[in-house]
Amino acid sequence: MLKGKDILNTAQFSIDELSLIMDTAADYEQKVKNYEIIRDMDGRVVACLFFEPSTRTRLSFESAANRVGARVISVSSAGSSSTAKGETLVDTIRTIDGYIDVIVMRHPEIGSARIAADNARHPVINAGDGSGQHPTQALLDIYTIRKEKGSLEGHTITFLGDLKYGRTVHSLGYFMTMYKNKMIFVSPESLRMPEELTADFRSRGAEIEETDNVSEALSRSDIVYVTRIQRERFNNPEEYEKLKGSYIIDRNTINKAKKGITVLHPLPRVDEISTDLDDYEGAAYFRQAHNGIFVRMALLALVSGVR
Amino acid sequence: MLKGKDILNTAQFSIDELSLIMDTAADYEQKVKNYEIIRDMDGRVVACLFFEPSTRTRLSFESAANRVGARVISVSSAGSSSTAKGETLVDTIRTIDGYIDVIVMRHPEIGSARIAADNARHPVINAGDGSGQHPTQALLDIYTIRKEKGSLEGHTITFLGDLKYGRTVHSLGYFMTMYKNKMIFVSPESLRMPEELTADFRSRGAEIEETDNVSEALSRSDIVYVTRIQRERFNNPEEYEKLKGSYIIDRNTINKAKKGITVLHPLPRVDEISTDLDDYEGAAYFRQAHNGIFVRMALLALVSGVR
Amino acid sequence: MLKGKDILNTAQFSIDELSLIMDTAADYEQKVKNYEIIRDMDGRVVACLFFEPSTRTRLSFESAANRVGARVISVSSAGSSSTAKGETLVDTIRTIDGYIDVIVMRHPEIGSARIAADNARHPVINAGDGSGQHPTQALLDIYTIRKEKGSLEGHTITFLGDLKYGRTVHSLGYFMTMYKNKMIFVSPESLRMPEELTADFRSRGAEIEETDNVSEALSRSDIVYVTRIQRERFNNPEEYEKLKGSYIIDRNTINKAKKGITVLHPLPRVDEISTDLDDYEGAAYFRQAHNGIFVRMALLALVSGVR
Repeated sequence: MLKGKDILNTAQFSIDELSLIMDTAADYEQKVKNYEIIRDMDGRVVACLFFEPSTRTRLSFESAANRVGARVISVSSAGSSSTAKGETLVDTIRTIDGYIDVIVMRHPEIGSARIAADNARHPVINAGDGSGQHPTQALLDIYTIRKEKGSLEGHTITFLGDLKYGRTVHSLGYFMTMYKNKMIFVSPESLRMPEELTADFRSRGAEIEETDNVSEALSRSDIVYVTRIQRERFNNPEEYEKLKGSYIIDRNTINKAKKGITVLHPLPRVDEISTDLDDYEGAAYFRQAHNGIFVRMALLALVSGVR
Repeated sequence: MLKGKDILNTAQFSIDELSLIMDTAADYEQKVKNYEIIRDMDGRVVACLFFEPSTRTRLSFESAANRVGARVISVSSAGSSSTAKGETLVDTIRTIDGYIDVIVMRHPEIGSARIAADNARHPVINAGDGSGQHPTQALLDIYTIRKEKGSLEGHTITFLGDLKYGRTVHSLGYFMTMYKNKMIFVSPESLRMPEELTADFRSRGAEIEETDNVSEALSRSDIVYVTRIQRERFNNPEEYEKLKGSYIIDRNTINKAKKGITVLHPLPRVDEISTDLDDYEGAAYFRQAHNGIFVRMALLALVSGVR
Repeated sequence: MLKGKDILNTAQFSIDELSLIMDTAADYEQKVKNYEIIRDMDGRVVACLFFEPSTRTRLSFESAANRVGARVISVSSAGSSSTAKGETLVDTIRTIDGYIDVIVMRHPEIGSARIAADNARHPVINAGDGSGQHPTQALLDIYTIRKEKGSLEGHTITFLGDLKYGRTVHSLGYFMTMYKNKMIFVSPESLRMPEELTADFRSRGAEIEETDNVSEALSRSDIVYVTRIQRERFNNPEEYEKLKGSYIIDRNTINKAKKGITVLHPLPRVDEISTDLDDYEGAAYFRQAHNGIFVRMALLALVSGVR
């Protein structure tokens, strides 16, 4: 169903494709946990082209590729030496496309993943293109929700923090809409979810509330997805200092929230989730990061057509 | 025939060795295209030491090593940390030689590949040593000509652009002489093929013409090998601007050239080949880059003695 | 015996554990030299996290991991991009821990290896934490002594050079004490072995002499372990220039030393061992570096529980 396809954005997936990805990921998770040796991509080479540094995402993809049996070649510097010589992205991709079987690419420019996909004969997986898409993050987010909650439907999920610039909440909001969940958007006024996205989600049938009352929202939520509020987003530093505290989640916040609430975060965190929460059973953010391995194994295997 | 040997320069090869390399490369190409799993270098480790960055060449060697079943360890930064501490190249090589089975090295200093080979017990493959040699590029060039044209002999090949500083045209000229081809050197006066090379090729029986008439040369050529003319080569920027246009190859140039002409370029290109040529059937420069994988697989396997 | 354990410092090992490591290393050395294909860590992924650059140590670990059948993912830059975003080491480790089976880490801060071990469910191997420990270097040192001398006991070993700041001599001194060897410490007054270490070694039964007479010490030594004296350690450059010569080992020094003396050095060297010694039979420093592969293969396999 996904053989030969590019993974470029969240909007491209049907419910059936999402189910296939998650079922495949769950199967790989089981195999990895049993130390089964997986040779599905034996003989295949995956290029991890990180033209913008992202150690965490690169290591996750490289580990996933190795765990599913592929070999990996990598670029992890800001600019490749060919780019420095004036080569276009199109030429870089057309060249490397002849070396490998799958391309994973992160690039600072929005739309670059599409350019790569249009010029490569092999499948391209978008590992983030600027402020554009980062679909594998959203896929591991829903995989985590399915695992933590048993299903992907019928939850109340609060998105907390910077909802304006947060690429991950935009993508996850899209998926949560597909699966008929209620969403509560909690953010400072200046960092609200963009109106066109809210409108789009509503037009697809999503039930949405917006508020700046964190504790009230959490008292009704099954899941909270936390994102960092960056100082740089505020013209007025005092406004940042005033707001900051209300958007920090700690043990105390969670004690007053709905029982069993699951806490998610795309990581890295700075101080928006207190470390005193780390041993709370519902603190799922590290498990969430670990799930990325299985989702990426599934994607690599599926687009390669070996599954 | 090549077991245990270093690959340092183009002059080291006999016709028999070149045939062996190309036949082995062709065999690997077939296997890769059939998705056969190749374990020829199973258990072997290849060190890719790029003391001078060259993303394209590094990725090509790393992919080749992986495709032929070897494992890869890499240095891709300008200076290793040991070099920074004052270690000599000899000591660096003697140390790493004990970690691996084959060394691939790129280094900014001419003659460094020979120093590495003299101090390593394992085979060394020169991936470019400054303005010195880059033999695997010349090998993939002739492999490409053999594939595109059916044979390596009896062609008229135009070398176009900067023939003075272009390492690749010097090496390919040497091979073309071995295989009895006619060569036309087309360059600005100040960037002519060095006289000692022209004399050397002639002394080995090569038929050579020199001209600055691009279109006349191409009307008689089976192959054109294009290289970039760099602005920095000219004392007078106006002279560069004046000349530049005549050395750009586009669809129009090729329409007036000999029918079926094959266009080669070592890549990366900037604007010396117009993108409007990319879908011309004889535009072989991306296929040429891709062929590097098979030629490098062959070299790694042959010097390791596993083929 | 070592399954699931962290390798953090030299003091953690029992004699039985050291024997197991060395016997396992010797077994792997034999297999590698016979080109046997080793699949002991097939399906496992090793993270080599070099938050402080060390090309030599990184390549040694990466080669070892590949030779023992594992796959490798690497960080080789000073700071990972997540650290740059303000993430703590604890969070970095907790995240990456979910991607892999073993962590190898080098970090500029003393104590960081312990922090990593405390936060990872998988084994952590300390590849150097600032001025702290670098246990795998000391392990390859004793493996080398055992190979070169036939046993680890009853030798007279001179430690030469900077004994104050030299992490490697501190660790090796500890092991030499365990195995009942006599130690002679030869250094400039200002770079003497720290008194607390000398006292500790003596309290464990070590026989120790201290002197600044290099040639007299070497006339009685079975082994000399040379370390570099760095100019930066001296307030007075003249003092450095005056001393430097006495601590350079060359062919002439060795001709006057005890017959059959073995010369060790952790590398890289600058000029403290003259290259005219390199073909001396007892010059074991390159063999010593090469032995690191087998010791690290053993450690990776043992902590993973596959041996």
